[in-house]
Amino acid sequence: MKFASLKSEHKDGRLVLVSRDGTQALEVADIAPHLIDALERWDAVQQPLQSAYESLNAGRAAGIFAFDPTQCVAPLPRSPQWLDGSAFLNHSNLMDKAFNKPPPPLVETVPMMYQGASDDFLGPHDAVALPRVEDGIDFEGEFGVITGPVPMGVDAASALACVRLLVQINDWSLRALGPHEMKTGFGFLQAKPSTAFAPVAVTPDELGDAWRDGRVQMQLHVQWNGQRFGEPHGGEMNFHFGQLIAHAARTRRLSAGCIVGSGTVSNSVRSAGSACIAERRVIELIDQGEIKTPFMQFGDKVRMEAFLAEGVPGPFGYIEQHIAEYRP
Amino acid sequence: MKFASLKSEHKDGRLVLVSRDGTQALEVADIAPHLIDALERWDAVQQPLQSAYESLNAGRAAGIFAFDPTQCVAPLPRSPQWLDGSAFLNHSNLMDKAFNKPPPPLVETVPMMYQGASDDFLGPHDAVALPRVEDGIDFEGEFGVITGPVPMGVDAASALACVRLLVQINDWSLRALGPHEMKTGFGFLQAKPSTAFAPVAVTPDELGDAWRDGRVQMQLHVQWNGQRFGEPHGGEMNFHFGQLIAHAARTRRLSAGCIVGSGTVSNSVRSAGSACIAERRVIELIDQGEIKTPFMQFGDKVRMEAFLAEGVPGPFGYIEQHIAEYRP
Repeated sequence: MKFASLKSEHKDGRLVLVSRDGTQALEVADIAPHLIDALERWDAVQQPLQSAYESLNAGRAAGIFAFDPTQCVAPLPRSPQWLDGSAFLNHSNLMDKAFNKPPPPLVETVPMMYQGASDDFLGPHDAVALPRVEDGIDFEGEFGVITGPVPMGVDAASALACVRLLVQINDWSLRALGPHEMKTGFGFLQAKPSTAFAPVAVTPDELGDAWRDGRVQMQLHVQWNGQRFGEPHGGEMNFHFGQLIAHAARTRRLSAGCIVGSGTVSNSVRSAGSACIAERRVIELIDQGEIKTPFMQFGDKVRMEAFLAEGVPGPFGYIEQHIAEYRP
Repeated sequence: MKFASLKSEHKDGRLVLVSRDGTQALEVADIAPHLIDALERWDAVQQPLQSAYESLNAGRAAGIFAFDPTQCVAPLPRSPQWLDGSAFLNHSNLMDKAFNKPPPPLVETVPMMYQGASDDFLGPHDAVALPRVEDGIDFEGEFGVITGPVPMGVDAASALACVRLLVQINDWSLRALGPHEMKTGFGFLQAKPSTAFAPVAVTPDELGDAWRDGRVQMQLHVQWNGQRFGEPHGGEMNFHFGQLIAHAARTRRLSAGCIVGSGTVSNSVRSAGSACIAERRVIELIDQGEIKTPFMQFGDKVRMEAFLAEGVPGPFGYIEQHIAEYRP
């Protein structure tokens, strides 16, 4: 199934099913008015939603309308928790190498993960209002999962079975603020403003073989101001999503609707490019001895879309956002 | 006004007003069924709630019943964000001194703050189910504020005006897991299981002169297994709550219902004792050359209650919890 949430007066948006071909939508308020509601009652609503989805795909349902991704909020405009891993070690290795830092302890065996704000997510076409260019505005292309309820102490295999939906994410970052927050040991806060999501969240079966080994096996195409920036592949995650969820749930239970992110998608082969500017900058520093690429300016645009194969876009739709100057 | 939330099938609990003397309660579902709902519509509900509160205190309202704090969940059983500062620098200075660590950068001018999980808070008498004693189970007595909506980039004075309610907090911590998470730079995650709250959240006016300079001017009495542990005073915060909120909102807006914590209450005078075991341990190390006090065992109890003056308990009620062994 494919889900999206349309703009609404309600903070959780208005849940719709999206047709497999991405062109049509169907409201399902009689089954679940909001995606968080569906996730909280998943066992009860899964079958009715599946029936509605089949009717939508067959063009048989009453009330089908054209799906307009520009009218979408994030699939979950707010969620119980947003926990972002750093599961592509190529990325963290590059960052450490560029700045001559020793790798963090246990980096290859224990996932790194921070807790982000989850009350105010951005939709796929929302402007990103930020106060200062000097903060080092950067995008981060990621994949993520939305969980059902996860018990404390779950193992990685059982955790993987808690995955309900897959999502595509732009984890906005302020690079000038990150190093200080990392040095305090308390982690990212100001360095992580509201995170954005592609319009469509999908059940894993929608990806077919591209959901494999607990990873989203797709290329994430990133463009900055219309120029190709990279298309790293999601299969290179050093920890799979079950391991990330189990890490998050080691000393807490997770409510239905928690979102766990992969961290910026990153591949060891240089030709893949990058999914964030910070990584391109450290590659420039390592390979060419100097940083050449600046961070984003007001008015800059980023576009992110995941592909199943060359020329075959996946089901998430795309994120296309621009940076606006925030004025109080 | 004084608010509490009673156990309910609803995740947000059942909102009641608590009488000024703490003995009686009144359901106010006709005004706002849940505290989060009241906070989201504060301007509209404040006056009706105030009227109901006056009727309750006068014993004139229909449906008054005896208030039983053991039936309470946290005032907000879940909230949009939980942001915990470390505003008592005496505490962080002691920790650094004991372990010969240089102080974090900008520690005296920029508050340290981590983002915690906010989807699954504990009530004042809930057992604390944790998997392993070896994780270093510790309490942290704190004060906190619940905000209305806070715009991005707010200054500290305006931020202070966004305070709606004051709360008393036990920020459970797992000390064996913290150092690794601090070293990664990504901050606390497994080291911070569900946080607990005293039963009653109060508007600042309920504290009279004890809400002053953006600080809760009360002694927090902490007992561990029935023994006095400390009674540090909340007035010694190096950053006031307005400064903490402004720090949190530097690059994001905060939704109504966000909770901002003071960090463990800590006083420079040794005779005040401590509000967490970790601090007592480092004081032992500094003053006596060795750590003597272990962390908590399964079955251990902690009690926390804030006092306005000697023998005069404040309006928050008390937290009394024991540690249980979590079994999956």
